[in-house]
Amino acid sequence: MKLPLGYRYGSVYAGIRKERRDDLALIVSDSTASAAAMFTTNRVQAAPVHVARTNLRASRGKARAILVNAGNANCATRRGVRVAESCCRAVARGLGVPPGHVLPASTGVIGVELDAKLILNALPGLIGNLSEKRFHDVSRAIMTTDRIPKVAFGEVPLNHGVVRIAGMTKGAGMIHPRMATTLCFLMTDLGVTPSDLRIALEHAADRSFHRLSVDGDTSTNDTVIVLANGASGIKANAKERMVFQEVLSWVMQDLAEMIARDGEGANKKITIHVVGARDDDAAVGIARAIANSPLVKTAIAGNDPNWGRIVCAAGRSGVPIQAAACSLRVCGHELFRAGQPVEFDAREVSAALARRQVEIVFRAGRGPGRARFYTCDLTHGYITINAEYHT
Amino acid sequence: MKLPLGYRYGSVYAGIRKERRDDLALIVSDSTASAAAMFTTNRVQAAPVHVARTNLRASRGKARAILVNAGNANCATRRGVRVAESCCRAVARGLGVPPGHVLPASTGVIGVELDAKLILNALPGLIGNLSEKRFHDVSRAIMTTDRIPKVAFGEVPLNHGVVRIAGMTKGAGMIHPRMATTLCFLMTDLGVTPSDLRIALEHAADRSFHRLSVDGDTSTNDTVIVLANGASGIKANAKERMVFQEVLSWVMQDLAEMIARDGEGANKKITIHVVGARDDDAAVGIARAIANSPLVKTAIAGNDPNWGRIVCAAGRSGVPIQAAACSLRVCGHELFRAGQPVEFDAREVSAALARRQVEIVFRAGRGPGRARFYTCDLTHGYITINAEYHT
Repeated sequence: MKLPLGYRYGSVYAGIRKERRDDLALIVSDSTASAAAMFTTNRVQAAPVHVARTNLRASRGKARAILVNAGNANCATRRGVRVAESCCRAVARGLGVPPGHVLPASTGVIGVELDAKLILNALPGLIGNLSEKRFHDVSRAIMTTDRIPKVAFGEVPLNHGVVRIAGMTKGAGMIHPRMATTLCFLMTDLGVTPSDLRIALEHAADRSFHRLSVDGDTSTNDTVIVLANGASGIKANAKERMVFQEVLSWVMQDLAEMIARDGEGANKKITIHVVGARDDDAAVGIARAIANSPLVKTAIAGNDPNWGRIVCAAGRSGVPIQAAACSLRVCGHELFRAGQPVEFDAREVSAALARRQVEIVFRAGRGPGRARFYTCDLTHGYITINAEYHT
Repeated sequence: MKLPLGYRYGSVYAGIRKERRDDLALIVSDSTASAAAMFTTNRVQAAPVHVARTNLRASRGKARAILVNAGNANCATRRGVRVAESCCRAVARGLGVPPGHVLPASTGVIGVELDAKLILNALPGLIGNLSEKRFHDVSRAIMTTDRIPKVAFGEVPLNHGVVRIAGMTKGAGMIHPRMATTLCFLMTDLGVTPSDLRIALEHAADRSFHRLSVDGDTSTNDTVIVLANGASGIKANAKERMVFQEVLSWVMQDLAEMIARDGEGANKKITIHVVGARDDDAAVGIARAIANSPLVKTAIAGNDPNWGRIVCAAGRSGVPIQAAACSLRVCGHELFRAGQPVEFDAREVSAALARRQVEIVFRAGRGPGRARFYTCDLTHGYITINAEYHT
């Protein structure tokens, strides 16, 4: 699939992370783009979150570039804001764009000072190697504990031609996006105003990153940014914007699913469908409780059809449910119907659970509410990564 | 310490659990006792929870006995309520007390029919071996994945003599009591009305079991029952009830701490103190978020002074905090002050974290709110127990 028109990408190793692989990246739009962003709802917010929000407000939703580093979250640091600002100014000078048109993002360890010099020294090389083709290099440079780079693409067929969307994200732990996620950058060549772009982003995030949890911990650096530079020459009318919004949702759902599959230590992606809830919010609440239950996640890691843990998690979600109206299917097998257990072949269901993709369908009643939610199993790998990781 | 007067205890192996150790127990008051209870807020509630609540309401807060089994939760079963009711009736006949004065409780696997015959057949032997001295046998019979029995005792010095409290609890996983806990039984020989007893229980639970989380999963069977039979001959006046309430809180705090220390796979008990919050509820919210963070719990398992994870968890609690007003001490070492990192000797703090008891003190601002919360570290042991446990 072709990338959106009018963007260039670059990455270098600036020495921020110990391991010698690219840790600093730049995404540049050839012309001023509409930009929309959503940030973490964590009350502790990293310096780049503050600076990106401030810049975006001052520029009234316009941007030219995203500067991102891995290996250091630039969060809970003394000089964090000054570091982020000076790096953005240097990028702006190098590109010849207004300083407020550069949006910073960081990911990595919290509470360690980010050395601005490492970034400033690396910038000439970074700007020098910008290319339309280095999209995938950026997706690799932003990885931390990720095992795989995460990219997704969409094409939006409109009346006057095709508009493209390309997205990338990173994240494997500290994943429970509430208003945004870990880092996620989306580029499109559609022509659209910042306010319409924001509506589309909120719609899409609500159906993708807000339905995702690896470990229930919302990061301090969650940032999702979408740029729309209009390089396709196509502007969408109101009806077409709905189509764009839908394709943007699909791209972001693909990215959210990739994070679930790559959850720290995870062997399996788990998709939780809740149906029959009072309304969609209630369905999300139930799905979130199931997705966050360590007992459900360890049972699935062990291929154990322990449906009692799933029903128990649904029951503690805080959403009123009638136990007698609940039913449960796991990997296509009905285990619980109208509040009562169903006889099943445990060996057969256990074999189904051994697959890499597990589907849970929980019926909470007869209401119209439904939701899809993404998570992963909880294994020894998660403990190893997080107990043996040292700051 | 002496046990409260006027209670007898018994336990037998009824064949409910596979392993051959006592799984059925009975606590009997020699005279009709005031009784108060709190039950799980999970929307899916086990049959014994329904029956105990119904009996207690019908008897207007009076009870003579608690019948408890381990190895089967009697939850999400077809015949669960009938099984619990028939067992209570049989106990009442055997003891010669009204059927509504027997309160049932169960713990174990969810969704497997509990065979009433196993219990009915074991009852004569169980009633036959009741003794004032078998308190500890009951505390062992109710264990499931617990590594240690959990008991605590208190003495309440009142004007006319000493009143005693004895408590026992069980639980190691599926622990996040919201309005009650796993199973906890408390006996006292104080004379007190059911309504005053209930006030004391709610006060004590709020400061103990409601401040406890092993894995964030609230069980379907959580039950705490306190019996007060007046066998001491002492009735408390209003002022003395406050003293009783305080000692009851201490006994329940001891029990809650024991659950934290015995959390599934846990090597360490973690006590989280939050101070300076807007109010006590805000402090509890922050403490709960830290206690439920798998990243905090794995860092402590690995003796890693990764304070960024603690600050991040506090930030996502949903409670408004000013990052610039936050400070953090871990095992007596200040790591974060007024929103900024403090230089510390990582090796020294790591050595302090290697102890079996870890203290976290988080200052959220300058408000009057404070809370203490209990949890444990998250280790490979938790995964082993819950991924390799098969239904």
